[in-house]
Amino acid sequence: MVGAEREPTTDLITVEEPLEIQVSSHDVDESLSITMRTPGEDFELAVGFLFAEGIVKTPNDVVTVEHCGPPSPDRGIHNTVKVTLADDVEFDMASLSRHVFTSSSCGVCGKASLDAISVQLPAKRNDGFRMTQAALSCLPERLTERQAEFSRTGGLHAAALIDADGTILRTREDVGRHNALDKLIGSIVLEDEVGTEHGLLLSGRMSFELIQKAAMAAIPFVAAIGPPSSLAVDLAREQDMTLVGFLKKDRFNVYAAPERVL
Amino acid sequence: MVGAEREPTTDLITVEEPLEIQVSSHDVDESLSITMRTPGEDFELAVGFLFAEGIVKTPNDVVTVEHCGPPSPDRGIHNTVKVTLADDVEFDMASLSRHVFTSSSCGVCGKASLDAISVQLPAKRNDGFRMTQAALSCLPERLTERQAEFSRTGGLHAAALIDADGTILRTREDVGRHNALDKLIGSIVLEDEVGTEHGLLLSGRMSFELIQKAAMAAIPFVAAIGPPSSLAVDLAREQDMTLVGFLKKDRFNVYAAPERVL
Repeated sequence: MVGAEREPTTDLITVEEPLEIQVSSHDVDESLSITMRTPGEDFELAVGFLFAEGIVKTPNDVVTVEHCGPPSPDRGIHNTVKVTLADDVEFDMASLSRHVFTSSSCGVCGKASLDAISVQLPAKRNDGFRMTQAALSCLPERLTERQAEFSRTGGLHAAALIDADGTILRTREDVGRHNALDKLIGSIVLEDEVGTEHGLLLSGRMSFELIQKAAMAAIPFVAAIGPPSSLAVDLAREQDMTLVGFLKKDRFNVYAAPERVL
Repeated sequence: MVGAEREPTTDLITVEEPLEIQVSSHDVDESLSITMRTPGEDFELAVGFLFAEGIVKTPNDVVTVEHCGPPSPDRGIHNTVKVTLADDVEFDMASLSRHVFTSSSCGVCGKASLDAISVQLPAKRNDGFRMTQAALSCLPERLTERQAEFSRTGGLHAAALIDADGTILRTREDVGRHNALDKLIGSIVLEDEVGTEHGLLLSGRMSFELIQKAAMAAIPFVAAIGPPSSLAVDLAREQDMTLVGFLKKDRFNVYAAPERVL
């Protein structure tokens, strides 16, 4: 619709469908989560989700990932993924992260959330990642180029793996920003690349949960087009993770660990 | 940081803290959810969340809403809200919406999600809401004016209650878009205004979950600065709810029930 003119248009719309993630452990299947997501890279999404929950730690923890059940009758999309865990992987539905943010000592608070996360974080991280201002300033335009679907529908968040010279190595998109990052991290886990020298680029805002997922994936450097929240900054500072926000071609803010920006 | 100049700045950052929502029913307290939110309007957020889950239906279902426990030691913020339900309100932890998207007939799919929602929706809705193009075109600027904090931190989603002439009646903001809408709907529930002649304005994208919440609150008209997802459009069409997306000063798209746009 332009001005006062009504006109019918064909509008490409981002597809959103539910995805059920099932876990099979010692021959017992359990339904873990249902998330609304953009179909595609479902296996990565499931593995990335399980990685962020601390259930899967290496590719060896996963025996198979498969779609199961018939495709949905309306759009013909497979909406259930089953991840079969290796027998030596501990899995307890009751210990999932729904309870991770509480601690008996001080109840529910940001500090308790940070403490609960710290316990789970990987010990090993590659801290040699450095990036120049020039490399950083190239990222917004490069991300836009890579967000092919975004430019068509305007409906997708992106998470991208970057290297130190500002090259975008891999991009994942989704209607949900957590899903986009889960897909990207799932791909890192399945390629056994956790702990390698890469940074993360996000198309939107940086929430606590996104920074938590980055920390779980041992990523030392996160840049985003949007701003961070207070708790995201707290977590990054505690983890000595570099946080760059409001990233534009000619300016950006550094919220934590500025020594990695050259 | 401007150009190649580094400069220290004081940057206002959106506060994000965990909120635990507890429900007290027949003298039994249960922890229902922990969400990362922007502190403020916690009572509305809790009530809006319970309303969207189908637990609270009218203000009479709620006996008290209160903060409990000590404030967090780090920021002095109360992060636990307890909602005490009236004795005649049915409450069963096991029936919560985690399972709402599955049905035994066709498994997990968009159609099953729509069917599951339809069962829960309120019977009564005011369908007389109509809006002119002129009124719609005023909304983006008015929302920007109302998003005081957004303009300072860039970190907040907004949900606003609007009337037919384009006046913004009430705005709620949060780091999480679902929280912003829960806060707004909670205020509508607590004021006993569900089913009155109002529309909804959203600062971002329209996902299935947001449109589901609007449908639960019997809102017949949703406009958003961003685009809708496929399942959001499906739900709106099935519910005969008007969906306006990509709302700008001089143009917008109508995705469902265009007869309410004059």
